[in-house]
Amino acid sequence: MSTNHEQQLKDFRELVQKIKSYEEALSLMYWDLRTGAPRKGMDTRSEVIGVMSTEMFKLSTSDEMGAYVEALSQPDVYAQLDDLNQKTVTECKKEYEKSKKIPAKMYQEYVVLATQAENIWEEAKEANDFARYKPYLEKVVAYNQQFIDLWGPKETRYDTLLDMYEPGLTVAKLDEVFGELRAKSVPLVAAIAASKNQPDMSTLEQKFDIEKQHQYSLFALEQMGFDFQAGRLDESVHPFATGINPGDVRITTRYDENDLANSLFSSLHEGGHALYEQNISKDLIGTPLCTGTSMGIHESQSRFWENMIGRSRMFWNRYYGDLQNIFPGQLHADVDTFYRAINRVQPSLIRTESDELTYNLHIIIRYEIEKMIFNEGLAVEDLPAVWNAKYQEYLGITPPTDALGILQDVHWSSGGFGYFPSYSLGNMYAAQMMNTLRREMPELDSLIEAGDLHPIKAWLTDKVYQYGKSLTPSEIILQITGEELNPAYLIEYLETKFSEVYKL
Amino acid sequence: MSTNHEQQLKDFRELVQKIKSYEEALSLMYWDLRTGAPRKGMDTRSEVIGVMSTEMFKLSTSDEMGAYVEALSQPDVYAQLDDLNQKTVTECKKEYEKSKKIPAKMYQEYVVLATQAENIWEEAKEANDFARYKPYLEKVVAYNQQFIDLWGPKETRYDTLLDMYEPGLTVAKLDEVFGELRAKSVPLVAAIAASKNQPDMSTLEQKFDIEKQHQYSLFALEQMGFDFQAGRLDESVHPFATGINPGDVRITTRYDENDLANSLFSSLHEGGHALYEQNISKDLIGTPLCTGTSMGIHESQSRFWENMIGRSRMFWNRYYGDLQNIFPGQLHADVDTFYRAINRVQPSLIRTESDELTYNLHIIIRYEIEKMIFNEGLAVEDLPAVWNAKYQEYLGITPPTDALGILQDVHWSSGGFGYFPSYSLGNMYAAQMMNTLRREMPELDSLIEAGDLHPIKAWLTDKVYQYGKSLTPSEIILQITGEELNPAYLIEYLETKFSEVYKL
Repeated sequence: MSTNHEQQLKDFRELVQKIKSYEEALSLMYWDLRTGAPRKGMDTRSEVIGVMSTEMFKLSTSDEMGAYVEALSQPDVYAQLDDLNQKTVTECKKEYEKSKKIPAKMYQEYVVLATQAENIWEEAKEANDFARYKPYLEKVVAYNQQFIDLWGPKETRYDTLLDMYEPGLTVAKLDEVFGELRAKSVPLVAAIAASKNQPDMSTLEQKFDIEKQHQYSLFALEQMGFDFQAGRLDESVHPFATGINPGDVRITTRYDENDLANSLFSSLHEGGHALYEQNISKDLIGTPLCTGTSMGIHESQSRFWENMIGRSRMFWNRYYGDLQNIFPGQLHADVDTFYRAINRVQPSLIRTESDELTYNLHIIIRYEIEKMIFNEGLAVEDLPAVWNAKYQEYLGITPPTDALGILQDVHWSSGGFGYFPSYSLGNMYAAQMMNTLRREMPELDSLIEAGDLHPIKAWLTDKVYQYGKSLTPSEIILQITGEELNPAYLIEYLETKFSEVYKL
Repeated sequence: MSTNHEQQLKDFRELVQKIKSYEEALSLMYWDLRTGAPRKGMDTRSEVIGVMSTEMFKLSTSDEMGAYVEALSQPDVYAQLDDLNQKTVTECKKEYEKSKKIPAKMYQEYVVLATQAENIWEEAKEANDFARYKPYLEKVVAYNQQFIDLWGPKETRYDTLLDMYEPGLTVAKLDEVFGELRAKSVPLVAAIAASKNQPDMSTLEQKFDIEKQHQYSLFALEQMGFDFQAGRLDESVHPFATGINPGDVRITTRYDENDLANSLFSSLHEGGHALYEQNISKDLIGTPLCTGTSMGIHESQSRFWENMIGRSRMFWNRYYGDLQNIFPGQLHADVDTFYRAINRVQPSLIRTESDELTYNLHIIIRYEIEKMIFNEGLAVEDLPAVWNAKYQEYLGITPPTDALGILQDVHWSSGGFGYFPSYSLGNMYAAQMMNTLRREMPELDSLIEAGDLHPIKAWLTDKVYQYGKSLTPSEIILQITGEELNPAYLIEYLETKFSEVYKL
């Protein structure tokens, strides 16, 4: 490589590192806001976040960045870069081109709007007042319509948004996989409801000491292989995981005295996200590749640990005794009763409280509505009615209020259209990976039953975690399973598991 | 003001606000590192801090900043600015001119060196190995010598460093006030040592539950008027306070089962710093004036609350009962015995563990040594011998190891020469303010004895806190007390208090 190009590469990497530094500072500020920042400092903090986000946006769309990605992606130069630099250039070029299409002023207005809309959403949800939220949501939708125009519509307009969270994902593909999943889930839910063998929930209907719940979360995370030298567990209203850097991955859970399962599975879920972020190859630090490859693959890891491992019979064969010991005299039920209780299926109104099976129907409803907004021009004012009709159709229940319906999720207020499908993609990817894992590790069940979870973590590190964003979601799933995303594995998993739980 | 100048002022304030945003992000990152950041993320975090500090330095020394402060400080333009803008321009001009004299490359090298030196210091202290630390300390001193040359020596070379922490403070002034303080303290310490009336320490020589210590700290802070909606209390190895913004002021304390007094007085001390930062006028947010006016005035507030209030007889007349209640069956001593125990005077080796009286001698030793380094060319290799000789001379004890002597403080490793005097300045300012407060609020003792501390906080807010950095330290002390810094008040306070405690 010429000295000139070598210097350019060096300067480029420095700029990329600088952008990552802003990202790290912002991640810490967001974590702080959500875990314990004093209330009265929040206005100033929001302004600081605004300033830092804008600086980061400016760097990503700077002429400097434009010149580097242009020069370094020239075929003769690009060919001389090593794999990591090639992928870094490609990723930055993609981000540059995408961001550059948004005028800086428009971006800033949108950031302000999103913050406002989120605040208003919170008030509107509290007050069960969709009308109050409607004008803000309309503006957010309008901005996203403009973004689609600026970025250029793909196969359909909504495809443009989907691609942001799951590169390469299309409406055509989702219609197919969600169609199959819905077709199999709806009758399965009905069969379960009709089953004579409903789980006995009484063992979970007790008060569980919060400090002990915390201890058990720490224990479970340690068993999974969460590295407490490279992360921490805190408490927040809405559990989340944030990979500030691979040596600093923070998760939260929430404790409710009346709901042991809540903290338990939130911890396992966020712990799954954390294992991903903690085990990204150190080589990727300081590049945009040092993160999960997509929301769907990220969610596959949280779902894998929460559901495929954490709600499995083998897991509780091993760990139920520890749970009984931490709550002496409280858990009289046998392990089978406990296992069936934590796997109860019941159509419900709130996505975040739903079970493993009906969860996907909550997602499919949101997907169909988002598609209607962007591809069919569904008006914001019609959302509550459409929402309620779909809940009745797929889950057999109608939300009595908007707070328990259309207003329940924060995502749309901050413009996260196209994000929801990730959750069910995660379930599908997880089941598909589990299928391969079982083939490659025939002793899997006995490992789980023996509490030896480290080979599982090592397998996932080898197949998924280490790569960060240096492989695309489809490269990952293809490399592991030999095929593209296929909903059959999730469907089979759900049918097998719940036929057994409910003795169908 | 012309439209042109109005625009300049607007752009200037935006730039200043941006610099403050970096400062806020950095403060949060430092707080996080010291309170619970995972160990394995620290390397990456240090790099992020480096990038952000450099960006902030670049903004403060940018041509843009130079042009604004030049234009806005032209007499005809300056005269049209309001008071806040005038002071903001003056402060930024001062900082600009100071920082501009340091080449950016040199600044970056120094930041890296300081981080290294701090790490090495920690290892050297642990290993009691001054030789290991010496080359780093020599480099830090050499950089500071260069800074003095670049900034220009004042009356003496060391004056240039003093001025950074306490604007306007000189060796001439410190020689005078520290001379008086030392001359009165040394014989007082000797008389106390010879007193037949030594306090009974047995009541403090017990184990005190850490969770209860924490509860009492929270209670004491609340009594002082610490606003928990605008701040939080955490734990760290070395207690500190950081004003991230006036709505987010964080303090830490440390808990030792064998040392109740430690957490108690650390909390009051840091609480004093916090009251200052929480009560700065909101008008100053987003300007460089939104902070304490100097290290000395800041320290006056921590010392005021820790010592003048927190170690007073009146305070314990009111609060000892609460302390007894929180540790039932442990505090059998009467309040007088307790009061005398927490006011024991005893020459000791470690500054941070020393009492209210000998503390100043620890500081005077450091001041004299720093002066010798910068004004008389004292070599780093000779520091341990000089240190030990001065401890013998002023306190009558010789450190048996360097770890208990020259290696005990972190300050020099990060280049904080000129900082130590602030601690004793704080004691002097506090006593001088207390003298005025007693005159203006004759009912002071009965207020304290009644646990009504809010009028004291209100008085300090009115006289000190609200102004932030919009008044200089000497303006503050002159405005409150009608005279410049005068050590007589501290000397009188110490003599009166300890003559009574020790029945001299």
